[in-house]
Amino acid sequence: MKRTVFFISDGTGITAEALGQSLLSQFNTLEFEKVTLPYIDSVDKARAAALRINRAAESDSIRPIIFDTIVDTDIRAAISESQGFMIDIFGTFLGPLEQEFGAKSSYTVGHSHSIKQSSNYERRIEAVNYALDNDDGARTRHYDQSDVILVGVSRSGKTPTCLYLALHYGIRAANYPITEEDLDSNKLPEPLAQHKNKLFGLTIDPERLAVIRNERRPNSKYSSIKQCIHEVEEVEMIYRREKIPCMNTTDYSVEEIATRIMVSTGIERRSKN
Amino acid sequence: MKRTVFFISDGTGITAEALGQSLLSQFNTLEFEKVTLPYIDSVDKARAAALRINRAAESDSIRPIIFDTIVDTDIRAAISESQGFMIDIFGTFLGPLEQEFGAKSSYTVGHSHSIKQSSNYERRIEAVNYALDNDDGARTRHYDQSDVILVGVSRSGKTPTCLYLALHYGIRAANYPITEEDLDSNKLPEPLAQHKNKLFGLTIDPERLAVIRNERRPNSKYSSIKQCIHEVEEVEMIYRREKIPCMNTTDYSVEEIATRIMVSTGIERRSKN
Repeated sequence: MKRTVFFISDGTGITAEALGQSLLSQFNTLEFEKVTLPYIDSVDKARAAALRINRAAESDSIRPIIFDTIVDTDIRAAISESQGFMIDIFGTFLGPLEQEFGAKSSYTVGHSHSIKQSSNYERRIEAVNYALDNDDGARTRHYDQSDVILVGVSRSGKTPTCLYLALHYGIRAANYPITEEDLDSNKLPEPLAQHKNKLFGLTIDPERLAVIRNERRPNSKYSSIKQCIHEVEEVEMIYRREKIPCMNTTDYSVEEIATRIMVSTGIERRSKN
Repeated sequence: MKRTVFFISDGTGITAEALGQSLLSQFNTLEFEKVTLPYIDSVDKARAAALRINRAAESDSIRPIIFDTIVDTDIRAAISESQGFMIDIFGTFLGPLEQEFGAKSSYTVGHSHSIKQSSNYERRIEAVNYALDNDDGARTRHYDQSDVILVGVSRSGKTPTCLYLALHYGIRAANYPITEEDLDSNKLPEPLAQHKNKLFGLTIDPERLAVIRNERRPNSKYSSIKQCIHEVEEVEMIYRREKIPCMNTTDYSVEEIATRIMVSTGIERRSKN
């Protein structure tokens, strides 16, 4: 039996989705059809959303679930007139917080993902530019400005992790691919040796690495299991020898890799919202 | 008066932060010191966190606020023994959802940002690779595989938006910079003309553009206000002439630009979690 879930917000919908997904992941035997309705910032739009919720109720023969982060009480009321079962985040928590703070909520439309809320927004965009400019060992002369330098063999997850650290946390993350040449030499490449305290190593199971590399360059030496085993063994030896903190990325998402690096290294986010 | 806020999670902490920031943004006259404690996945770690909360209570002379997304009831209990004021997301909403679903929560540690939860995780990483390979007009021959092609003058926000669409939603977004040469010609560049239905235009206030460009290349013709006004006027004329949907990015964050493009174009996310 399929059940429709609505994530409804007066802003991007990112918070409603994050919370809803997090709660729904606890019910992994059930099947959900997920619909996000962002920018529901007027009573008219809310009424249209309510109609859509009611249509889903009818076609599913069961009432939909609603996760909403709408601040305006009139707009929220229009949603609550639908047949959906409402997990009403602001309605539930704003009251207790107002009491705790002894202050009234401003009831302004959700700005938690807006440029206004975050004076540090520009740091995130600067960090994205930094990550792109310092991706894949392209340049090494700006390493002194980095917060962290990810190292690892090709396709071990460096670039997406750097981009996530930049976009989400404003962290300046460079990355440097450890090549065969580096593996054969008995010392750290010079640009890395100069910034050893900023290095963080990624590693990955050779079997998984071979799968990923095969998508990029099928049936090459580069993507052979033999080559992958060799590179991973060697790079892990370097991490041990040089005492570079590291993690195996095989079972982790980019969000998890990024946050675990932050915990492990103690680097501070530059964007604090 | 400063007050400490803790975001505590057994996973990345991303959901607890998103929800907490969203609620706190309603109290914009108050000042908060924000601390995220991710991966609190044992009673011992929770007890250590509780000690930290109590220390903050003492030094602030007021009890901290806790936003937590901990699933395990024992771990949550250890946190709740601290002096903090707890906004307990799972404690509040899992009960009502269990009742509504007629099903028990699995009480598994938060996997909403893990690789396991999302069978579509790989699509997001593929989309990141797609965005990088098709950034800045570098290649145009894979435009048939794109979901959207962002166009705009240099530094109007194309690249960060493409990366966000990819990382967060698994959307394959290419981008193509409209150069002076393109502006002077009276027709769309050939690679764009072939995929006109996928184009989305970004524009930006010339004053803001000049500030951004000046950070990149100070005191150049490229970053002069005259040049910026010229380019923006011309590119907006192209959007009108070619009927390319577009938005002005000046006042919007990358999250807002990305979600507004999705609403405006109706492109579907490839990663559905």
